Amino acid sequence: MPQLTPARSRKRATLFASIALIASAAIVVPSAAIAAIGDPGGARRHAGDTTKAVKAQIKGGSAKNVILLIGDGMGDSEITIARNYAFGAAGTLPGIDAMPLTGQYTTYSLYKDGPNKGKPDYVPDSSATGSAWATGTKTYDNAVSVDINGNPRDTILELAKANGYKTGNVSTAEIQDATPAVIVSHVAARSCYGPDSPTCGEDALVEGGLGSISEQLLNTRADLTLGGGSATFTQTAKAGQWNGQTLFEQAAARGYQVVDTAEELAAVGSATQAAPVLGLFTPGNFPTRYAATPATVLGADAPPVTCTENPERLTTELSLESLTTKAISLLKTKKSAKKGFFLQVEGASIDKRDHSADACGQIGETVDFDEAVQVALAFAKKDKNTLVIVTADHAHSSQLVDTTPPTSLSVALTTVEGSVMKVSYGTAAAGSSQQHTGTQLRVAAYGPQAANFVGLTDQTDTFYTMSRALRLDRSLSDLSENASATLSKRTVVPGEIIRLSAKRFNGDRQVSGIIAPASGSLPSPDVLSGKAEWSLTAPTTKGTYTITVEGAQTGTKARVKFVVR
Amino acid sequence: MPQLTPARSRKRATLFASIALIASAAIVVPSAAIAAIGDPGGARRHAGDTTKAVKAQIKGGSAKNVILLIGDGMGDSEITIARNYAFGAAGTLPGIDAMPLTGQYTTYSLYKDGPNKGKPDYVPDSSATGSAWATGTKTYDNAVSVDINGNPRDTILELAKANGYKTGNVSTAEIQDATPAVIVSHVAARSCYGPDSPTCGEDALVEGGLGSISEQLLNTRADLTLGGGSATFTQTAKAGQWNGQTLFEQAAARGYQVVDTAEELAAVGSATQAAPVLGLFTPGNFPTRYAATPATVLGADAPPVTCTENPERLTTELSLESLTTKAISLLKTKKSAKKGFFLQVEGASIDKRDHSADACGQIGETVDFDEAVQVALAFAKKDKNTLVIVTADHAHSSQLVDTTPPTSLSVALTTVEGSVMKVSYGTAAAGSSQQHTGTQLRVAAYGPQAANFVGLTDQTDTFYTMSRALRLDRSLSDLSENASATLSKRTVVPGEIIRLSAKRFNGDRQVSGIIAPASGSLPSPDVLSGKAEWSLTAPTTKGTYTITVEGAQTGTKARVKFVVR
Repeated sequence: MPQLTPARSRKRATLFASIALIASAAIVVPSAAIAAIGDPGGARRHAGDTTKAVKAQIKGGSAKNVILLIGDGMGDSEITIARNYAFGAAGTLPGIDAMPLTGQYTTYSLYKDGPNKGKPDYVPDSSATGSAWATGTKTYDNAVSVDINGNPRDTILELAKANGYKTGNVSTAEIQDATPAVIVSHVAARSCYGPDSPTCGEDALVEGGLGSISEQLLNTRADLTLGGGSATFTQTAKAGQWNGQTLFEQAAARGYQVVDTAEELAAVGSATQAAPVLGLFTPGNFPTRYAATPATVLGADAPPVTCTENPERLTTELSLESLTTKAISLLKTKKSAKKGFFLQVEGASIDKRDHSADACGQIGETVDFDEAVQVALAFAKKDKNTLVIVTADHAHSSQLVDTTPPTSLSVALTTVEGSVMKVSYGTAAAGSSQQHTGTQLRVAAYGPQAANFVGLTDQTDTFYTMSRALRLDRSLSDLSENASATLSKRTVVPGEIIRLSAKRFNGDRQVSGIIAPASGSLPSPDVLSGKAEWSLTAPTTKGTYTITVEGAQTGTKARVKFVVR
Repeated sequence: MPQLTPARSRKRATLFASIALIASAAIVVPSAAIAAIGDPGGARRHAGDTTKAVKAQIKGGSAKNVILLIGDGMGDSEITIARNYAFGAAGTLPGIDAMPLTGQYTTYSLYKDGPNKGKPDYVPDSSATGSAWATGTKTYDNAVSVDINGNPRDTILELAKANGYKTGNVSTAEIQDATPAVIVSHVAARSCYGPDSPTCGEDALVEGGLGSISEQLLNTRADLTLGGGSATFTQTAKAGQWNGQTLFEQAAARGYQVVDTAEELAAVGSATQAAPVLGLFTPGNFPTRYAATPATVLGADAPPVTCTENPERLTTELSLESLTTKAISLLKTKKSAKKGFFLQVEGASIDKRDHSADACGQIGETVDFDEAVQVALAFAKKDKNTLVIVTADHAHSSQLVDTTPPTSLSVALTTVEGSVMKVSYGTAAAGSSQQHTGTQLRVAAYGPQAANFVGLTDQTDTFYTMSRALRLDRSLSDLSENASATLSKRTVVPGEIIRLSAKRFNGDRQVSGIIAPASGSLPSPDVLSGKAEWSLTAPTTKGTYTITVEGAQTGTKARVKFVVR
């Protein structure tokens, strides 16, 4: 076999450095080439036997932290297109491709109604797929963590929180979009963003429902929420405890640290149940990294183009990589702590640009997402006790083709290697939304329990693997079963101020209280780490009273008596 | 969480049995449904932690046998479409999905000529991809195990044979098609099937080349070759030792057991170097399992159809499953033997039906291929010393879509679950060939060295992993370095008959001999297990002579002298 001469030796080591340089320039001009891939063995990715290295990655047991990274719409085709463009066909996406354990999973959803109820819908949407990993339950397109019968199913974030973990939710989409919504809310229609949304139906607070996605997000009270979608938070609640206030006012009143700029976020030093972080940096979705390259019929016959930076892109302090870094720094617990965090990070617009047949758009978002994966993986490698999962919710339209297809939309790009790559979109007409596709797709993982993603799984398995890694008790009722209520004083005079404390309502996120006989309801505060407190004024009528505190999620009741004399 | 009641319990266990029943009927009517997949956890594929089970599959070391199964054009989309149709979205392809260790690999090829020489071609053909795993070398579309400079590269089958393994080559295509061709031949243009092929150019024997694919196949002399493509073997050699004879006549003269019916194949009891098996059962490709369902523009808006058996299908004794079973039985060596076999099995027409936008065609071929995988996996599980690899050469056009695309070709099918599945083909016009696509795709493995397929690899890594599993010396020259020549008698009288023996030409497949001075060339026999023999008549002129035996592949020379007195 011929030896590689220095002149022909591979330049992969320097490739990423040059890409990084390029990415900071206004024009993203691919450069550099990979030499010697035509030599025998020149294109292989392993120098030798990886058996021991793979075996060393197989760790059972529990994880202190779980980071779930979702590239929305990022099927194998989208990964390959981004790799080819930015790192070359023989190159490596430094985050996505570095995940050591890999498999495929199925993503189908179910029909909700009629004679097909419960039968597979082979091409799912993002809310059904998100609900699958969020709750372990297959459901219908449009469902946000409710099953095909409309029953809410507890989410991985809710359960992690109830089990004492810190929780975070990061997305480049508006935070009400399906993927961030499924871990913090339960609605029948994914477009039920806020109190003004006409699609909320019975989920609206005014209808006695759980409220819109944004209102439920505030109730779920993750320690950290970062993304877009501030517009909906300017809407005003129409019922409930915060009736008449905007959601931003409500958030502030409930103790949230609300931020909307990179500077404000940089100043945040903690994310806790007492003061969760709510950072919404755009009214809608984040602008993309690269400017759009519209595909057209026979478009790939035109001269190939290169991707350019999108001038609208947010500052890099608000890139998905930066938000992921910040999220981890705010969520990570002390070395001595047994419990860490659950964090979901979504690169949302791979999907959105694929819908728009925008090759550079989806490539930029994939590269962006890959940088977030790198951050998560680097943390996990240092931490040694974190499960990292990198996957997508569903596959998408874009295909790598050899020749320009006759009727599909297409575009030709010049890649980093100086080769021409043709990308085709054939599932919708120009101007219409390209479709998701139903193929199984890649799932990859690192850390404790990661081996559970090797081979073929279903998307719903992800929920169970994450739950097992975090040793979650999945029964909220069990988690509240030791709930109790205590009073600062059991015998009081009329009108005396006393303090009511509820404890160990770990399975609940809010609690209500009723004083009997007939002194009415108490406010329904947020449960912080299992606890809630009220300051009460004793009734003026002498007698014996019972306070019943009830968990909003589990219905668990704790009672305490006091005497007014 | 609700318990599954008996009435709603899953029926997956009985699903495969019912499919088997269906497949034997003339009309393939999907039936049965999967219950309870809408229940929490009802769709998951793992009941619990698989960490130990995965870890138990990680085996380094060497393998006695390697079985490489290629579903041509079988990307993740094709796998999913077949699974959905035949076993349901929550079902399992019993062979493909049972492979325990999985990853993705890249499949790109390289440009051969001009300023782009050596740069990636992002959408490869089957000959470049086959050459990649066959030789570990990336090459250009159209190349059959030659590199971008036209140099032949030794194949895994040639090397396995030279290292003392038995070898086999099975395909449902004509045996000259790219995938079976790449392991037994080296030509610049894949259509160089036989001596009559106009594309052979310098590869033709008459041009002093190595000969057409069929002629090289006979020279390579695998122990077993089963497939289609008998038409080419009726062509007549135009140069060389077998000039004027048909390839079938040549095969018979060289000791091949030539069979063309199921009965004849059943009667074959051994496959050896002395009498290799050449079974060619159709003039061209095998007929497919299911009849074609042509896709049309807006076709998926028509009522959904079910697949029907193809009346032209060969007898099940010649199914890929049956051929694989037969191949393994003929190639497997004794328990006490250190070396086993290398076998490649190709399900060829997944690709061909995808090119034709034929959903039922590709589904039937995938199911057919899956049955061959089951046979290989069952053997490996019993044998405990076999590496099985299941993958594809490249991805293909077919996509699962939600709604009928406006311009792409499409068809709707009713699946085994009674759900409607829409399949779309958008890379070519009606009547034209749908294109391969360039996405990374699934590779899966079982047995020693299987862990090397976990994570991201390139197709060329496959060659090195198989070589390592079989502990192959990849230098044919080294394998012939102890070659020697001996004579039955060193001192002879004029005209005496003597026997010349060549030994340990393990790296060579043919040897030639020259007697000096000036007694001309000897015939060039096949090397059988390193050996070749000639019967010579001593020259009539007295004196001392030197016979030089030269290996055709390595150029290794062995000399022996004799005296005529």
